[in-house]
Amino acid sequence: MRAVDIIMNKRAGKELSAEEIRFLINGYVAGEIPDYQVSAWAMAVFFQGMTPAETAALTETMLHSGNVMDLSGVPGPLVDKHSTGGVGDKTSLILAPLAASLGIRDPMMSGRALGHTGGTLDKLDSIPGYRTSLSAAEFKQILITDGFAMTGQTKDIVPADRLLYALRDVTGTVESIPLITASILSKKVAEGAEALVMDVKYGCGAFMKNPADAEKLAISLVNTAKAMGKKIIALLTDMDEPLGNMTGNFLEVEESLDCLEGNGPADLMEVTLELAARMAVLGNKARNAAEGRTLCEEALAGGKPRQLFLANIKSQGGDPEKFLSMRGNYRSPHRAEIRAAKDGYISRIDAWKTGCAGVVLGVGRNRTEDAVSPTAGIQFHCKRAAAVKRGDPVMTVWGKDEASLKAALPQLEEAVEYAPVPPAARKLILREIS
Amino acid sequence: MRAVDIIMNKRAGKELSAEEIRFLINGYVAGEIPDYQVSAWAMAVFFQGMTPAETAALTETMLHSGNVMDLSGVPGPLVDKHSTGGVGDKTSLILAPLAASLGIRDPMMSGRALGHTGGTLDKLDSIPGYRTSLSAAEFKQILITDGFAMTGQTKDIVPADRLLYALRDVTGTVESIPLITASILSKKVAEGAEALVMDVKYGCGAFMKNPADAEKLAISLVNTAKAMGKKIIALLTDMDEPLGNMTGNFLEVEESLDCLEGNGPADLMEVTLELAARMAVLGNKARNAAEGRTLCEEALAGGKPRQLFLANIKSQGGDPEKFLSMRGNYRSPHRAEIRAAKDGYISRIDAWKTGCAGVVLGVGRNRTEDAVSPTAGIQFHCKRAAAVKRGDPVMTVWGKDEASLKAALPQLEEAVEYAPVPPAARKLILREIS
Repeated sequence: MRAVDIIMNKRAGKELSAEEIRFLINGYVAGEIPDYQVSAWAMAVFFQGMTPAETAALTETMLHSGNVMDLSGVPGPLVDKHSTGGVGDKTSLILAPLAASLGIRDPMMSGRALGHTGGTLDKLDSIPGYRTSLSAAEFKQILITDGFAMTGQTKDIVPADRLLYALRDVTGTVESIPLITASILSKKVAEGAEALVMDVKYGCGAFMKNPADAEKLAISLVNTAKAMGKKIIALLTDMDEPLGNMTGNFLEVEESLDCLEGNGPADLMEVTLELAARMAVLGNKARNAAEGRTLCEEALAGGKPRQLFLANIKSQGGDPEKFLSMRGNYRSPHRAEIRAAKDGYISRIDAWKTGCAGVVLGVGRNRTEDAVSPTAGIQFHCKRAAAVKRGDPVMTVWGKDEASLKAALPQLEEAVEYAPVPPAARKLILREIS
Repeated sequence: MRAVDIIMNKRAGKELSAEEIRFLINGYVAGEIPDYQVSAWAMAVFFQGMTPAETAALTETMLHSGNVMDLSGVPGPLVDKHSTGGVGDKTSLILAPLAASLGIRDPMMSGRALGHTGGTLDKLDSIPGYRTSLSAAEFKQILITDGFAMTGQTKDIVPADRLLYALRDVTGTVESIPLITASILSKKVAEGAEALVMDVKYGCGAFMKNPADAEKLAISLVNTAKAMGKKIIALLTDMDEPLGNMTGNFLEVEESLDCLEGNGPADLMEVTLELAARMAVLGNKARNAAEGRTLCEEALAGGKPRQLFLANIKSQGGDPEKFLSMRGNYRSPHRAEIRAAKDGYISRIDAWKTGCAGVVLGVGRNRTEDAVSPTAGIQFHCKRAAAVKRGDPVMTVWGKDEASLKAALPQLEEAVEYAPVPPAARKLILREIS
């Protein structure tokens, strides 16, 4: 078997065998197949795609390129949620304790902010004392006691993805549905999830800019997960505006707590409850999404999820009392307001521009080695369809320092779009694919 | 400027600027842009193609990646011929002295056999004493005195092509019309040709398997050369069967001499004269191809081309008398016959299978570092459309050793195709593109 023949078969649009895919990926991880062959293959995949069988074989191969979490002995059901990334998306922080309150266990391994999208780990790190680098034993123990545990991906989980992603990033081969599918699913399965709810976002702040591409990815994820014997439901959700009224690290933890207390913003609550309802279904706690949603609403009203959230802060090294005392005042001193530039309606707060401005403020990062600020961020006072008068407050903005704040403000002003009439309705949840 | 953006622009089907192409190729040659980015770009080019302007920019950039032959002071016209490679194609050996006899100068830099195709240098090397590694000064001097000189490409000619071709070879990106165009033309222009006749072959023994692909390549070569201010004419010629009645190294030199003496096989003479006629046109020795052909036929009849061929053997270190004395007897002792397997007509001698068997016999090589045999080869006693009876001699075969001969015979038997009726006529020269 030769790598060049595998490349040429894919170039010609042929279906590769599982053996060919294993040869290529395992050879690459072992350092036997050079990166210049793998990048040419990835570009051929970009143009020719992969069949469901090929995508499943790629996912399996990547999954077994490193350690697979052993969660045997953890009483199930083990259900996780994964999002394709967005701005202001803090649903994980709410879903984990909410699902746990229903008797579902959520083994949550998260990533860090990169580019315009936020990262769950960076948000959790803003809680003083909270540890996001748990050992496998700690992770398993906290998962049993709290019903969920939140940690970063360890280096030995899916090394093939780390290699492949770094290569795709610099060779223009990121935007390939089967490669994205294998990257996401190999990690999620390696992390121990038995069932998955996928939040596939579309819109200017999402990886997929339009619903059609998001749908293709969702279908690919669902088909591949099923081919691997995993339960899965995907929701297509809107990411044209930031989700909720806060972006930032500590700011988003705070807003998550607001949701757990029943005071969350409507858009964030809606997406969270719809995702939670599917977790309930996959965890066999509800027969359908409607029943699942009712269960979740009742659970939130009962206060158990909030209690589990605070208990987990303690389990992972934080101090819940101290955390609660920081609420509303843990903010950078470098602060400014964005005010409405004209009378009319806000037609959109551009999620992409907001996310990019967030990187400047210190919420996110452009390079993995950069630090983020816990206290930088944005609070949105009005979003899409809000009627405004010139000078009304639209955002409060905190920068990691004065220079960052100054640099971000014009970007944020540009992120606010106005219209003389209210914008047409836009669906927050487009459809379910399962 | 970032390589990844250039890759993504090409991936999206956009036209790259000359500046972007220079950035990528010069960066690659300088070791600043890694091969994994260049291979991904080459695969994107395979799928998206290149405009004539892009191809010209790529060719110019590659051309200037190394030394360009300085043939100033050589009285012109400087006209060269290049073939896309085939089996039994020895037209270069005939064309150079033939064109020289008309007062054209042919600065011929050739390559070696690789895969199923033969190499002019290997053929010349079979002439004892003949030197194919001339210094630039020797090359120029012999070009002035003999009217032509034949040497190998020096290392400092188009280093970008050497790098890029090696990368394309192992990344499934060889078969791209613009990349092939830039590879051919950058070398030919760097070698000092002012005008070019291109022999673009199609058929099972050619790089391009069908006339449509060959035509695309010919059009690309013609457009790109013109964009660079070079005169060019391309002919599409058939390479479904070996050209002439001999394949091998010394065997092909012998057959070239036969042609120069007016005793060449019809197919080889036809292709040679049609190519030579175009060289005459480009060298301003004839107003059109018909006039050029008449000139060439007259020149051959006058014996000057044969005389120049023998003089060049002497100029480049060989002994013409010794060479003539070896004629008909410089053969490997490991010899066998292929006989007709049935009564009927030969419908084809498969050039591809014949070429591959030639590698086994020792005529060619699969790896550049392998040696070839001067005395191995095949003599065809009958070709397409010949009526045969079972047992008639079809080929005489010489192998570099007994094992090679044994291994090649079944492949050669398979290369002979039979039919109960004569095959339909097949055009040797399909069309001219200029």
